[in-house]
Amino acid sequence: MKNFISADQLSKEEIFNVLQRAEYYRLKNYKIKDQVFVANLFFEPSTRTKMSFTVAQKKLGLEVLDFHSESSSVLKGESLYDTVKTFEAIGANMLVIRHESDKWFKDLENKLSIPIINAGAGKAEHPTQCMLDLLTIYQEYASFKDLKVAIVGDIKHSRVAKSNMQALQKLGAEVYLCAAPGFEDDDLPGTYISMDEAVEICDVMMLLRIQHERHVHKTETSNYLDLYGLTRLRERKMKKHAIIMHPAPINRGVEIDSDLVECSKSRIFKQMANGVYIRMAIMMYLLEEWGIIREKNLEEYKTYAAVK
Amino acid sequence: MKNFISADQLSKEEIFNVLQRAEYYRLKNYKIKDQVFVANLFFEPSTRTKMSFTVAQKKLGLEVLDFHSESSSVLKGESLYDTVKTFEAIGANMLVIRHESDKWFKDLENKLSIPIINAGAGKAEHPTQCMLDLLTIYQEYASFKDLKVAIVGDIKHSRVAKSNMQALQKLGAEVYLCAAPGFEDDDLPGTYISMDEAVEICDVMMLLRIQHERHVHKTETSNYLDLYGLTRLRERKMKKHAIIMHPAPINRGVEIDSDLVECSKSRIFKQMANGVYIRMAIMMYLLEEWGIIREKNLEEYKTYAAVK
Amino acid sequence: MKNFISADQLSKEEIFNVLQRAEYYRLKNYKIKDQVFVANLFFEPSTRTKMSFTVAQKKLGLEVLDFHSESSSVLKGESLYDTVKTFEAIGANMLVIRHESDKWFKDLENKLSIPIINAGAGKAEHPTQCMLDLLTIYQEYASFKDLKVAIVGDIKHSRVAKSNMQALQKLGAEVYLCAAPGFEDDDLPGTYISMDEAVEICDVMMLLRIQHERHVHKTETSNYLDLYGLTRLRERKMKKHAIIMHPAPINRGVEIDSDLVECSKSRIFKQMANGVYIRMAIMMYLLEEWGIIREKNLEEYKTYAAVK
Repeated sequence: MKNFISADQLSKEEIFNVLQRAEYYRLKNYKIKDQVFVANLFFEPSTRTKMSFTVAQKKLGLEVLDFHSESSSVLKGESLYDTVKTFEAIGANMLVIRHESDKWFKDLENKLSIPIINAGAGKAEHPTQCMLDLLTIYQEYASFKDLKVAIVGDIKHSRVAKSNMQALQKLGAEVYLCAAPGFEDDDLPGTYISMDEAVEICDVMMLLRIQHERHVHKTETSNYLDLYGLTRLRERKMKKHAIIMHPAPINRGVEIDSDLVECSKSRIFKQMANGVYIRMAIMMYLLEEWGIIREKNLEEYKTYAAVK
Repeated sequence: MKNFISADQLSKEEIFNVLQRAEYYRLKNYKIKDQVFVANLFFEPSTRTKMSFTVAQKKLGLEVLDFHSESSSVLKGESLYDTVKTFEAIGANMLVIRHESDKWFKDLENKLSIPIINAGAGKAEHPTQCMLDLLTIYQEYASFKDLKVAIVGDIKHSRVAKSNMQALQKLGAEVYLCAAPGFEDDDLPGTYISMDEAVEICDVMMLLRIQHERHVHKTETSNYLDLYGLTRLRERKMKKHAIIMHPAPINRGVEIDSDLVECSKSRIFKQMANGVYIRMAIMMYLLEEWGIIREKNLEEYKTYAAVK
Repeated sequence: MKNFISADQLSKEEIFNVLQRAEYYRLKNYKIKDQVFVANLFFEPSTRTKMSFTVAQKKLGLEVLDFHSESSSVLKGESLYDTVKTFEAIGANMLVIRHESDKWFKDLENKLSIPIINAGAGKAEHPTQCMLDLLTIYQEYASFKDLKVAIVGDIKHSRVAKSNMQALQKLGAEVYLCAAPGFEDDDLPGTYISMDEAVEICDVMMLLRIQHERHVHKTETSNYLDLYGLTRLRERKMKKHAIIMHPAPINRGVEIDSDLVECSKSRIFKQMANGVYIRMAIMMYLLEEWGIIREKNLEEYKTYAAVK
């Protein structure tokens, strides 16, 4: 793994390597000694992902360069490629990029001497979100084999539905899809089941956000919760050990009853915490892979990952 | 004091504790050893307050997370509560918040596991400004007992008039109010006197800013200075030792003659410097109170505070 | 040199002093021990310059205060002078300023107790760009004596054409100007030659950016490259050792054929890298000059500058 662009490219071994590293960083403080610069280039609004990367970077002792597209030369018409080459030239050792284009990285791969991380590509991919979702499940069940996972909601506009489905299947889970009419994705063939069925059989209810900002027509949400969302009634039908996930920001009262956001089954805020550890893991993986920092002994990660 | 929300909640002892700490940090460098994250969430424009907090945080060796509401998930409709819980989840150990709502903190108190600091609440409160005003007077007179203080200007729209009045009275000062017609605050009963009277009897002329951005109708300012402001003529009638204060940004030539902003009686830029020390004091107070960092010996603060 | 406002003010000795320091910082890591605050006040869009200063500051171990004019008290009508005095009051030890006014520094010189650096003044000056251009030539030729340099393009709206011309002439170079009709600057008398002549005789082709955002009328660019730009055909007529420079952001296919941006003669990305070292040099120069940090032995710089 030279860049972190897509979760689909990862082998099973690479996924577990990242998860083990993330557990290590969750349990143990680790700061690098050298001065290493990472630039965060976000061309779309973000709180969670950008701040999560920032915390991860500061925890690792990296120097953070914060790019604001609204006050930059992008206003003078500069291309993504030239902006990125500028950061490389002034000394960035790694780039974290979110961009509205689905394939922004196509123009960059193999043209840079530093690693890049995909922090969101249009409505196509958001692979660090995929990895933190996997980490949350891994912490819960220590395995993915034969787990029943429902991916629920606005599948059509989701950046993570497809990646999560493929990664979970690769790891041995059974994935089901639940979507309101119009939210199905024709490019994502899978077993569609009803919400009422999903809550009864699944170990993980992985809710998606309705991506209003990516819709052509405003979705009517007045009775969405009752028809397709996770109501308190449906939550009571979930298995005892089953968990609720959501990538946030949450449309409270739409995808999920507001009262369930912090209920005992919810891992929503734990997912956010895990985002920091996953991003630490991915950044360290790439920095080691490129020889920007000296490689750690992978066995050490495994020791810590075993600790629960 | 578990959160710093309102100056009115502070006892006399707590006020002096904060002032003594602030003097300590003014006179002595102090950096914490551990990695502690503070997030600054400003939903309203600010130079002074935000930068003052930032300097205070960096002087203490805190890690600063800088939130930009204009490029965040707030654009996707996320509530303050969910934004705040996100920062808690990703590792913030303390939050500094400015928000346009007068009571933004009501939804947050007792729902967080980390301290919060009010850096401005609509037109209602701005308690760190109140504390730095007190510090500036304390440095000048070493006591508040029987000091005569005039609070002058746009009292109706001021975030600090009420807090300053109550705090000063609690500490033994005599407070007078001066306001142009329409700038009085019916909710703030007090002794209203004329500007010409105020300059002759007061030890402190505490000017307020005309908050144009909070007015429904634009205030006519062409002859405001002569009628209600601090002119050079009025300044000459002030007591020899009396001082001029203003929270800034200043409307030069309106609340105060531009030539007086840096005159020998002015403490306006000293107030800004004091803002840093006060914010260091308040942050350290809360971090110690919550056990996020180990408590210092309060006696040490007192020793330094005695140094003038 | 107490402030860094204009390249024209620098003596030959001061220019070489800065270049030697820059070479030192390129070759050797150097971090200051004390806590020194620098504020970056950018009132105009910038990626390159602002990020370059930020990297330079972090490499030196300076504390960076990042000012966003779009979320500041400037929105409340605060003047540049009052904004700057605020930063001085809260503890900034040095200021880096870019402002749309050609003469913003006139109101500030001799009124501050801290050094200021000009990071761009309207369409008038951009002296750190001038210095990094000099450094790039110095690295190439180790001397400026009798070098033939063509300054090419939108001379009328360029911030660096005039400074570069004067500095290069002071250092002994022969400077030629090339401009499309309407891009000549009447205030900048010089030897105008054609592009085709320039490529044949010059050691340095210093291209300028068409400053669309400063033009009253949109410039027609459809055949600009062929008529006045650096085409592949013209590039082949350049001397073997000659180099291509451009301050960026580049209008690819307008000032220069897109394929030439990263060709072997191009020093465009090297200029960006040099920007970091030049800014480190200028900041250290001023911090030492003001006694904010202890002065280094200049001989040490010279030793390193000799290393090629």
